[in-house]
Amino acid sequence: MIESLQNEKIKYLNRLLTDNRFRKKEQVFTVEGAQENKRALKFNSKPVNYFICESIFSGELPLKFESISDKIYNKIAYRGSSEGIIGIYKTEEKDLNNYKPKDKDSVIVIESVEKPGNLGAILRSCEAFGIEAIIITDTKVDIYNPNVIRSSVGCLFGMNIFQSENKTALKFLNENNFQIYTTNMHQNAIEISSINFVKKSALIFGTEHSGLSDFWSQTGKNVIIPMCGSIDSLNLSNAVAISCYEILRQKK
Amino acid sequence: MIESLQNEKIKYLNRLLTDNRFRKKEQVFTVEGAQENKRALKFNSKPVNYFICESIFSGELPLKFESISDKIYNKIAYRGSSEGIIGIYKTEEKDLNNYKPKDKDSVIVIESVEKPGNLGAILRSCEAFGIEAIIITDTKVDIYNPNVIRSSVGCLFGMNIFQSENKTALKFLNENNFQIYTTNMHQNAIEISSINFVKKSALIFGTEHSGLSDFWSQTGKNVIIPMCGSIDSLNLSNAVAISCYEILRQKK
Repeated sequence: MIESLQNEKIKYLNRLLTDNRFRKKEQVFTVEGAQENKRALKFNSKPVNYFICESIFSGELPLKFESISDKIYNKIAYRGSSEGIIGIYKTEEKDLNNYKPKDKDSVIVIESVEKPGNLGAILRSCEAFGIEAIIITDTKVDIYNPNVIRSSVGCLFGMNIFQSENKTALKFLNENNFQIYTTNMHQNAIEISSINFVKKSALIFGTEHSGLSDFWSQTGKNVIIPMCGSIDSLNLSNAVAISCYEILRQKK
Repeated sequence: MIESLQNEKIKYLNRLLTDNRFRKKEQVFTVEGAQENKRALKFNSKPVNYFICESIFSGELPLKFESISDKIYNKIAYRGSSEGIIGIYKTEEKDLNNYKPKDKDSVIVIESVEKPGNLGAILRSCEAFGIEAIIITDTKVDIYNPNVIRSSVGCLFGMNIFQSENKTALKFLNENNFQIYTTNMHQNAIEISSINFVKKSALIFGTEHSGLSDFWSQTGKNVIIPMCGSIDSLNLSNAVAISCYEILRQKK
C-alpha cells in the first residue's frame, strides 16, 4: 500500500489532478467516484490505472490498481465524501463526421460555454432526456476537465459529444438537413412548445454571459422559453434542461 | 473619493463582503451590480449606504453614496466585469403567516439546500415562471449570502421567500389546502405533465446530495420528471427549473 505523498506514482496522479495543461499533454483524464468510474468503463473508456483506498471503496476491484492509504486518498481526492476510487483513462477525440444523424435526432449546440460546472450539468440533462448529440463550439473549456466529469456525474461517457468551430458545426448541420433553432432573446421568437422537435433539429445556445454570437443569428428560426416574471432570462444550464425536457415531452 | 483600503468605511464594507457571520450580525446584506441594485430598490429594500466607483458606474447616482477609486473597487468587488456599484441594505425577515395564498398559487419548497449558487439559480427560475412563493426549510444557507443574490441576478428581491422548519411548512400547506407533490425518485410516481397545477399546489424538493428526507415521504403524491437516458436523476436546480416551466405551461 502506498502511504507517502512523495511516491512517484502519487506525485504523477496529483499533478494530473491539479494541472489541467499537464493532464491534456498526457492525453488522459481522471475520474473520481464509484458511479463515474463504472460509467467510464461501461462506455468503453480505456483505463490506464486506478488508485484505490480499499478501506473506503466498496465496489468490485479492477484487476490492476494501486492501493493507497486513507491519509493519501483524503489528501488528493476532491470530494470529502467520495468513494475511494480515482481512475485514469486515455482521452479520445471524436470526429463530427463519424456521426450519422437519423431522421428524428435532436442536437444541442453550446457556443463558447465558460464554466465547466455548467457544461457538466448540461451534459447530464442531455443524457437524461435522450439528446442524440452535443456539439460544443469555440470553447476554452476542456470536456475532460474534472469539474465537467464531476458535475455530469459521469454522463459524458457514452454520449455523442463533439468539439468544433462554429463554421464546421453549421456546415455539418446544413449538410445533414437539420432544422436550426437559435436562442437570441431579443427578436421575434417562436415559443418552444410550438416547435416540432420530432423532426431532425438543432437548438443553439450561447454563453452564460452574453448569449449567442452574431455568427448564429441569421442561421435559423429564433425560439424562446415563455416566461412571465420580471426577469427575462434563465441560467444557461436551466434553459438547456427545460429545452431537453420539452424535446422529450414532444417525442413521447 | 476614498482611495485607501485602510479607510474605516472600506474596512467595514470589506468585512461585510467577506465575513457572512459578521454581515448577519449587522442585519444587512450587500448587493453588487447595476441590475441587482436596481431590483433591490424597485422591490423596496431599505438602503443603508452605497459604494460607487464613478469611473465605472453608468447608472443614475443615488442621493447618498461613498465615492471610491478604481483601485479599491477592483480589490473588493467580486466580479471583474461588474458595474461599479455595491449597495448595503437592511435584511428583512418574512413571516410565512403573512402569505395569504390564492386558489391557483404554486409553491416550491426546497428542503436543506446546500449550495448558495443552486439556491440563487432556483430563485431565478421561480421568478421567471411566476411561482407565487418559495419556502426554504431546514437549511444552513443564508438567503442573503452574496452568492445567492449573485446567481439569482437579484431575483430574490420582491419574491415571497420564507425560511421555516419542515414542520411549520407542512402545517402551513395543510391548513391552506395545498395539494402536496413530493419528488422522491424511487417509488411509483406520477409524471409531472399529468399533474393539475392549475389548482393550489406545492412541489417539494430535497437536497442536492440525497434528495428528500423521510419527513416528506408520506405527505403527498410522488411525482417524477420523465427521462429516457441511462442516468436517473437531474441536477437540483435543473429539476426545479423544468417543474416551474411545466407549471407555467399548464397555467397558460
